[in-house]
Amino acid sequence: MANSKYEYVKQFEQMQNLLPNTYIVVRIDGKGFHKFTKFYEFEKPNDEQALKLMSFSACVVMETFSDIQIAYGQSDEFSFVLSKDSELYNRRSDKIATCICSTFTSVYALNFEKFMKKPLQFPCIPIFDARCVCYPDLQNIRDYMSWRQVDCHINNLYNTCFWGLVQKGMNKQEAEKTLSGTNAGDKNELLFTRLGKNYNNEPEIFKKGTTIIRQPMKEKVNLKVELDVDNKEQQKLNKKQKKKLKYKDLNQQELNQLPNQQKEDLQVQEFNVDIIKDNFWIENKDYILL
Amino acid sequence: MANSKYEYVKQFEQMQNLLPNTYIVVRIDGKGFHKFTKFYEFEKPNDEQALKLMSFSACVVMETFSDIQIAYGQSDEFSFVLSKDSELYNRRSDKIATCICSTFTSVYALNFEKFMKKPLQFPCIPIFDARCVCYPDLQNIRDYMSWRQVDCHINNLYNTCFWGLVQKGMNKQEAEKTLSGTNAGDKNELLFTRLGKNYNNEPEIFKKGTTIIRQPMKEKVNLKVELDVDNKEQQKLNKKQKKKLKYKDLNQQELNQLPNQQKEDLQVQEFNVDIIKDNFWIENKDYILL
Amino acid sequence: MANSKYEYVKQFEQMQNLLPNTYIVVRIDGKGFHKFTKFYEFEKPNDEQALKLMSFSACVVMETFSDIQIAYGQSDEFSFVLSKDSELYNRRSDKIATCICSTFTSVYALNFEKFMKKPLQFPCIPIFDARCVCYPDLQNIRDYMSWRQVDCHINNLYNTCFWGLVQKGMNKQEAEKTLSGTNAGDKNELLFTRLGKNYNNEPEIFKKGTTIIRQPMKEKVNLKVELDVDNKEQQKLNKKQKKKLKYKDLNQQELNQLPNQQKEDLQVQEFNVDIIKDNFWIENKDYILL
Amino acid sequence: MANSKYEYVKQFEQMQNLLPNTYIVVRIDGKGFHKFTKFYEFEKPNDEQALKLMSFSACVVMETFSDIQIAYGQSDEFSFVLSKDSELYNRRSDKIATCICSTFTSVYALNFEKFMKKPLQFPCIPIFDARCVCYPDLQNIRDYMSWRQVDCHINNLYNTCFWGLVQKGMNKQEAEKTLSGTNAGDKNELLFTRLGKNYNNEPEIFKKGTTIIRQPMKEKVNLKVELDVDNKEQQKLNKKQKKKLKYKDLNQQELNQLPNQQKEDLQVQEFNVDIIKDNFWIENKDYILL
Repeated sequence: MANSKYEYVKQFEQMQNLLPNTYIVVRIDGKGFHKFTKFYEFEKPNDEQALKLMSFSACVVMETFSDIQIAYGQSDEFSFVLSKDSELYNRRSDKIATCICSTFTSVYALNFEKFMKKPLQFPCIPIFDARCVCYPDLQNIRDYMSWRQVDCHINNLYNTCFWGLVQKGMNKQEAEKTLSGTNAGDKNELLFTRLGKNYNNEPEIFKKGTTIIRQPMKEKVNLKVELDVDNKEQQKLNKKQKKKLKYKDLNQQELNQLPNQQKEDLQVQEFNVDIIKDNFWIENKDYILL
Repeated sequence: MANSKYEYVKQFEQMQNLLPNTYIVVRIDGKGFHKFTKFYEFEKPNDEQALKLMSFSACVVMETFSDIQIAYGQSDEFSFVLSKDSELYNRRSDKIATCICSTFTSVYALNFEKFMKKPLQFPCIPIFDARCVCYPDLQNIRDYMSWRQVDCHINNLYNTCFWGLVQKGMNKQEAEKTLSGTNAGDKNELLFTRLGKNYNNEPEIFKKGTTIIRQPMKEKVNLKVELDVDNKEQQKLNKKQKKKLKYKDLNQQELNQLPNQQKEDLQVQEFNVDIIKDNFWIENKDYILL
Repeated sequence: MANSKYEYVKQFEQMQNLLPNTYIVVRIDGKGFHKFTKFYEFEKPNDEQALKLMSFSACVVMETFSDIQIAYGQSDEFSFVLSKDSELYNRRSDKIATCICSTFTSVYALNFEKFMKKPLQFPCIPIFDARCVCYPDLQNIRDYMSWRQVDCHINNLYNTCFWGLVQKGMNKQEAEKTLSGTNAGDKNELLFTRLGKNYNNEPEIFKKGTTIIRQPMKEKVNLKVELDVDNKEQQKLNKKQKKKLKYKDLNQQELNQLPNQQKEDLQVQEFNVDIIKDNFWIENKDYILL
Repeated sequence: MANSKYEYVKQFEQMQNLLPNTYIVVRIDGKGFHKFTKFYEFEKPNDEQALKLMSFSACVVMETFSDIQIAYGQSDEFSFVLSKDSELYNRRSDKIATCICSTFTSVYALNFEKFMKKPLQFPCIPIFDARCVCYPDLQNIRDYMSWRQVDCHINNLYNTCFWGLVQKGMNKQEAEKTLSGTNAGDKNELLFTRLGKNYNNEPEIFKKGTTIIRQPMKEKVNLKVELDVDNKEQQKLNKKQKKKLKYKDLNQQELNQLPNQQKEDLQVQEFNVDIIKDNFWIENKDYILL
């Protein structure tokens, strides 16, 4: 039975190959996470464990796709920046978006219980969408990252006020009304006077989101949480998978004593810092190979 | 802190909206499943439980996206056909592909242990890619489905021979060489004379793959495997989610006694039948609203 | 000097191949024709010679691109419908649009003086844009054509009123104001009472626009205006070009007496008729091979 | 008669907006120019008047579309580079390609007789296709231009040899065979020994093609050939059109005496020079606002 009679249907595929020599940003975003976070009773305004599950999933995505140079996430979204010369899947937009999205989903789903201390209940399962966007130059990428971090700040300031008021007993409609039309200064003031909170003292992970880059490894990495599979299973891991385990337990001093070639072994690292100003980019210019 | 300075980066998104009045086929496909199936020691040439996990995941995708009219799967792939008038995500190609892919991945990952009787071992996790293809008319869709089912037949006949020879003690290179250049007749002959197998007697699920449509429910559906959440949890399910549970335990006689309106409540149903000839399409013309 | 060092730049081309098995509509549209028609003092509201120049140019486009099955034009626009199975330029959107646009422009520019009795004055030259749109089924195409013909009707009724008032001495602002908010009935009434015109008696070419299909040739075709090149030049014409001249002077009776094969020799023909109702499509079903 | 019933067909348009912050190159290319140049008996290997007609048409395109910063042409092709921040037609690919293509075609057709000293003979008319390609950085643009100029060199060297041999009496098959497998050195040698030509002495316009940029005007510009319309017609020209005439008859000394503001009035200028090395780009860095 020849297949050739039907193979014409392959010609209907209309692939989009992303423009060469541009950065590819893949942003994944939680689908229906309003309902999802309610069902699983996430802490409001921020659930630190949920944020760590997001970052953990992003770290695995970065380990899996070595063309990703930097990632930034906040709330239920994460953005991954591929280098300009990436040839991942011949720059096919649909393959890049779906593979990264699927990897993230898989890791998130499988590690949910470990981070959140409760099981996923079918059919309320985590779903993410993803999109690819091209940016021609580094300034565009800096501005993209700034856009997401400003968004993090705006939402977090609002949510800190909103849930603070609600936790003080105000109902949600009133809280919304109270905050309507206020600017950043008003919200800081409200936090301080009515809720006794100094926004500056809020955790950096809430205020800044999480940036992930590759650096020479300095300390135990959070990937470890998943790597306590028993020895029999470790023997099945392939060489690349094993490498991830290699330097896990060295301290900085030991690291410095490593020969050069080994020092170049980079490991994904998380930061909760400002990425709008130049500091972060200058300090890490050797490791962000943009 | 205004976000407007950076918002220009949004304009770089280049969305593709799929041509209206065309069927949208979304095909998901396992990434690196050669290694994945080896790691988890899938039965060769076919692992029935693994196929059932694929179908189960596809059923949940169909329950989640009501615009999907029919689905067909085999091996590590599944195709979903959306109706011509679907307005899902405004027909945005990337959203459709990533959301369906992410849903499938999430269900597959979360139900792996239940179906396969072994836990997923990080970092060897299931990943799928997905693509959207538009087809203008029903003949194209029939031909697309035939293309995939012929592919199923060709691969399954080959794999049945190959693994049969290997299980008889032949090494893989020899088996490959033995089959090289043989046609379908040769392979049927080889199966019969050397392996004592009549290909016609192989399980239909291996030979035909799995087709899923919506029909008035006649029997217990396999969705049930996941729905034994305890009562407290069921109370959290929303109305639509509960409906899925409703008629689960009725037999055909009881079903026939339901008032009309309830009979129209369709339920996804799996078939392992020929979908190349007209029969299946004629018999189910009332339920495949293509 | 090898070119290979620079050839990488070819990879930046991102071609769009239009979905197979769909009709391709190419619509060309005059650029800045408000100014253009003013500069060359086109008659208002309709310049019959200018419309004939448009139709003539469209006829040549249809002669040049045999995949075009039907064309419809009005004012400064023309739409060309390619058959579903057209493989013109591998269905590359940019090539189809630019080649049809360039052909139309070339014919229009070169025949302007012949039709309009005045020379083109640089730099006020005719420019057209063009776009490709795919339609999956015949109903879409019928609706597309109806959309353009209704547009023709709406604009022509308005313009007939507007220029009628202006020609009666009203200034343009007043005329615009007078017509603002009127419906079709009002406009017909105004035409009749204030301008003494029965819209029904306006020329069909103004009210219906021009539809071009291929039919067995019945009468002298307007292509002839261009074909009076002297004999020496005709000898340079290739076979296909000469065929266009062949049956030009036969009447219908003579045509009927032609052997079958010759009858099939179709010639583009213009109609100024309703294409919204079914009549036109039924009568010409043998010649519109959609 | 409402049009709303049919307006849904507008939704089938799938526009492509070119990626922001990238250079847009529009390359137009003669369609069927092998036959066209034969019909009009262009001089071989190069027809200087035909090349000048191409450049003249390109100059008008640059005058018409002020976002074009630089253009390069050879043989029957011309490439136009739009600035990175161009918002021409909202960067819609089809509009940019068709409008530039149509303008070029119109000018070429209308000026053919003036340059070529023979009339265009219907139906052998000039047709061009066009495509848009995006390039993210200046190096890409330099490489694109180099790619076209190397192509010019390779083709011109070959054609100079080929037509030299043919003009010496060799038939075309023999000439082709003689040149098959030769490298650049062989061809230079063949030109010198068999045809008595030093390739270096060939006209620069043949060897280098034509580059067009905007510079403060130094001399009479070739646009003038078209601008000898009589006074009555000039009065109809709008202000922008008239500006083109303004400084046409000044010499360099007079130009230098112009006040600064007027000096900034740039005029398209043609060059037949090397654009692969840095010289041209350094010398004109003030005028190529890439």
